[in-house]
Amino acid sequence: MEYKEPFGVKLDFESGIIENAKKLVRKLSDMKGYYVDEEAYEKLLKEDPIIYEVYAVEQEEKDGDLNFATTVLYPGKVGSEFFMTKGHYHSKADRAEVYFALKGKGGMLLQTPEGEARWIPMEPGTIVYVPPYWAHRTINTGDEPFIFLALYPADAGHDYGTIKEKGFSKIVVEENGEVVVKDNPKWTE
Amino acid sequence: MEYKEPFGVKLDFESGIIENAKKLVRKLSDMKGYYVDEEAYEKLLKEDPIIYEVYAVEQEEKDGDLNFATTVLYPGKVGSEFFMTKGHYHSKADRAEVYFALKGKGGMLLQTPEGEARWIPMEPGTIVYVPPYWAHRTINTGDEPFIFLALYPADAGHDYGTIKEKGFSKIVVEENGEVVVKDNPKWTE
Repeated sequence: MEYKEPFGVKLDFESGIIENAKKLVRKLSDMKGYYVDEEAYEKLLKEDPIIYEVYAVEQEEKDGDLNFATTVLYPGKVGSEFFMTKGHYHSKADRAEVYFALKGKGGMLLQTPEGEARWIPMEPGTIVYVPPYWAHRTINTGDEPFIFLALYPADAGHDYGTIKEKGFSKIVVEENGEVVVKDNPKWTE
Repeated sequence: MEYKEPFGVKLDFESGIIENAKKLVRKLSDMKGYYVDEEAYEKLLKEDPIIYEVYAVEQEEKDGDLNFATTVLYPGKVGSEFFMTKGHYHSKADRAEVYFALKGKGGMLLQTPEGEARWIPMEPGTIVYVPPYWAHRTINTGDEPFIFLALYPADAGHDYGTIKEKGFSKIVVEENGEVVVKDNPKWTE
């Protein structure tokens, strides 16, 4: 029988970079329609800042195998809404995921297919368990990069379409210097 | 449909403890037959030191779900052989695992069912990918607790029996102050 070769790679705690990983960059221009304040979005688009970078080590899509990736989510806001990842369900909806916060400050917004939402604050050392079926998005509520490691089944897949179309039922904004989780005015069930 | 509830838990980087996790303690007396030097084992048994502690957060054994656990593996030797975990294959042999070293110094010994071995050194920041089918054991080669986080499919299961009976084909010992990976004199295929 042929076996895959084990390996060790280095994750740099300061930068979040995993050596030899596949890098993905999401700029503001990749996220049209994701933020509530469209005027603020268009204005910031002139700079088109990087919102987040992902360093992923992935296997073939096979049941029982595992992928892992770090995300470096930059600080900033579009209007009053904090910088965030696109968020996704898993294509195989019953796949779980585990996040481990390493640096910075933020949280995870989760949502069932029916739009029931949860907010879990994250700081270095927080491990978040994402159960099967929940969409999930991470949000930087601090003023430095928010860095975390995620592990997910190799056959989970990403369903971005549902969130792109409908968004989350909640948004996370700054109001009077506070982090506030409130209803998304554009949400329709 | 009923959904499981997402949650966040805190991992303490200094102690390796995960709050509200299930704690498991392995003392030397739980590891009879695992170390090569039986005389040194019997002698140290009078103290019966804790070899390692595990803090696990586990789900039901279900395909696509994920468990995680930290291990605090203490420094020490039985004769010249470094303190180590029991090591195991997965009951569902095609389940992968990912380890993430947080503190201390050590490594992972891996082995195929045919006894082909690998040694991967680990230090804080090292992520080790354990492919399907490989047995794996961690070893503390330093002089402080070696702490790491492991993530594994919820239906992986632990097959300890094969290693208990046959051991690994390699052992990791200290020779003249160096970490040496050498053939296990008791290994039989």
